Amino acid sequence: MELEPKENPKQSVSRRDFLKLSAIAGTGITLGAAGMGAIMGIVKPENGKVAALSDDRISLYGQHQAGIITPQQTYMYLASFHLTGNDRSSVIRLFRDWTKFCDLSTAGGTMKTGDNTLLPPNDTGETLDLPAARLTITFGFGPTFFREEGKDRFGIAAKAPRYLKDIPRMPRENLDPSLSGGDVCIQVCAEDQQVAFHAVRNLIRLSTGYATVNWLQEGFISATPGKTPRNLFGFKDGTANSEHDNSAGYDDVVWAGEGEPDWMKGGSYLAYRKIRMLLEVWDRTSLKDQEDTFGRYKESGAAYGRSGEFDAVDMSQQPGSAHVNLAKQTGQRIHRRAYSYTNGIDPRTGNVDAGLLFLSYQKNPETQFIPMLRMMQSKDKLNEYTSHVASALFACPRGLKEGQYIGQNILEG
Amino acid sequence: MELEPKENPKQSVSRRDFLKLSAIAGTGITLGAAGMGAIMGIVKPENGKVAALSDDRISLYGQHQAGIITPQQTYMYLASFHLTGNDRSSVIRLFRDWTKFCDLSTAGGTMKTGDNTLLPPNDTGETLDLPAARLTITFGFGPTFFREEGKDRFGIAAKAPRYLKDIPRMPRENLDPSLSGGDVCIQVCAEDQQVAFHAVRNLIRLSTGYATVNWLQEGFISATPGKTPRNLFGFKDGTANSEHDNSAGYDDVVWAGEGEPDWMKGGSYLAYRKIRMLLEVWDRTSLKDQEDTFGRYKESGAAYGRSGEFDAVDMSQQPGSAHVNLAKQTGQRIHRRAYSYTNGIDPRTGNVDAGLLFLSYQKNPETQFIPMLRMMQSKDKLNEYTSHVASALFACPRGLKEGQYIGQNILEG
Repeated sequence: MELEPKENPKQSVSRRDFLKLSAIAGTGITLGAAGMGAIMGIVKPENGKVAALSDDRISLYGQHQAGIITPQQTYMYLASFHLTGNDRSSVIRLFRDWTKFCDLSTAGGTMKTGDNTLLPPNDTGETLDLPAARLTITFGFGPTFFREEGKDRFGIAAKAPRYLKDIPRMPRENLDPSLSGGDVCIQVCAEDQQVAFHAVRNLIRLSTGYATVNWLQEGFISATPGKTPRNLFGFKDGTANSEHDNSAGYDDVVWAGEGEPDWMKGGSYLAYRKIRMLLEVWDRTSLKDQEDTFGRYKESGAAYGRSGEFDAVDMSQQPGSAHVNLAKQTGQRIHRRAYSYTNGIDPRTGNVDAGLLFLSYQKNPETQFIPMLRMMQSKDKLNEYTSHVASALFACPRGLKEGQYIGQNILEG
Repeated sequence: MELEPKENPKQSVSRRDFLKLSAIAGTGITLGAAGMGAIMGIVKPENGKVAALSDDRISLYGQHQAGIITPQQTYMYLASFHLTGNDRSSVIRLFRDWTKFCDLSTAGGTMKTGDNTLLPPNDTGETLDLPAARLTITFGFGPTFFREEGKDRFGIAAKAPRYLKDIPRMPRENLDPSLSGGDVCIQVCAEDQQVAFHAVRNLIRLSTGYATVNWLQEGFISATPGKTPRNLFGFKDGTANSEHDNSAGYDDVVWAGEGEPDWMKGGSYLAYRKIRMLLEVWDRTSLKDQEDTFGRYKESGAAYGRSGEFDAVDMSQQPGSAHVNLAKQTGQRIHRRAYSYTNGIDPRTGNVDAGLLFLSYQKNPETQFIPMLRMMQSKDKLNEYTSHVASALFACPRGLKEGQYIGQNILEG
């Protein structure tokens, strides 16, 4: 059996690559060198460079990681891992294999299964007919990656980034620890849910023996090009991102630098809150109350007293407890990248289980994100209709160069 | 506040319509006739006829319900309702309102909120900027709609369709009753998840006071035009549908007729099984075992001994317990319309909770579906990797004419 390459099938894996991947995939079979070529190859488009990428591919490589200021794709899976080993070498092995898979899948390739059908396929196969679909895979590290219960597991505590610690407890939150935190976070986004799931599933598969999954959360938005998506309260979400939509703005808001270890310069902090929305309560609320809650008109997205979505907020028109008002009062900006989630019916209440996966990226969570969260958790009118059920903070390193593996600047040298 | 109509905003609701919808939406406010025009209108494209529909709209009306043989959209929500009242008139009221919403939303319209912001908006708003996205809304009725615990709740027991009963218990199944069955089933499909969720959420909202939701299940496929989608085992799912892909074939396989009550002629039976897939076990299985399980080659989808996906199955080449072999042995055909689901991590096992939402439509479940299910649940090699966790059978009436409401032929006359 031969898999049709999607494009220029000239690249293939080395024997060392193969043995590693097949060991990770859990096959117990050892192979002589003779059969190698036939057994497995990797199908990858030849043109891996940014300039040559077609519209549906986003390069894994660059100054910054993709998936942060990349225009939002339609689907997201967010996975949190716990590293089970305590030695640095097995973390390196895992991160190298993850990098190889990310390199391949973001370029629209799949691992190839050869003629030996006695092995498990090296790719789960559900994207064989599918394009890259703007797949991005973004990595972040939690506080426990650097130090867990006072222990420097991997000898990297000295390289911890400046602002990485758990988000402090907030009033009114209702966190589920099993859905919060983690050593490593992977944000997988794509225009096609099956492509996104395929990536996260194979990353989980490759982690066998090295890591366990703490939690896996899926989300969606309706990504109409050029329009701000609406959340499940029917309001536009992410309008304020337009205020820093230029490279100077991203330097001001998103990209970490000063005082950070080298690997974090050009990286960013990911703040995550899973926010349950009480849709049934909201839907019984008057339009005025809904608009007073956000401080914006529902349909246009304009702030009170303004007519356009992107017009500057007029603070004199804002109700005291409105979301926009409180966000502006902090004088801080963040880069929002939120998704919606739905998860059937809550059996305890009979209500729909749905809400917002709040994700924001910022260079300094202590000055940008935490004061905003604290003000909102204590004063925001939205608290009447929402409940925060999960929380995490991760440090996302700067971008990769080809040939590097994820986390290399932390784990080596 | 004025909502921008998406197109020709000339239609609006009558006062009676408005009062009904606003009552259903849970507003406690009674209005004088004077303010009516300003308060709410319905925005609907004028051209509601099939011929005039643009590519992204699928008419609610026709000989058969849409969403059955309609090419599969990317997203599905499947919702099951329990009718809480015991009188026929409140069921009629609910079904009329549901019909009105379906008419509007499948045509790409949204209900419009007027200047009175003291009312809850009559539409939740998250699709204000979105197209119809090939939205279809398909209704089915469970056995308890016609008779529950021997009781003819709505005086329609005599109109029960010929083959509607619960799917019998099967060996090896592991059903969760809270995820199975129901009085009414609504299948909502669209190319955009937010459009699909908006529809199911508003149908739930409109049911307040008349029905409760038993369960709500979401699914996706990667719908590449002209290609059979792959399930999460990496195999193509629905290849055999090609065998009846013409109107005589649909009459043979899908559309109910002989011996059925009038409302069911041209309808179909929906069989639903939620099938958990043990992805971690599957992913450690050799390619040969995987292919033996289906009796097909993984990449091409061709049956064993054949080269093309759509080549006729050669029974002499089939392993005894292969999925395709067992399906063919029954000599029966069904129309598959399956979706995949993913639902995070199963906290009991640490494994991914994912699988297949098996949906099939057929004219006679007793001869077409149940023998196939029975054979597969007892002999199919797939049982090593799957577990059936939910089950339901619904009778889906024939299509609607404009002006009719859903279920009218059952509830009246």
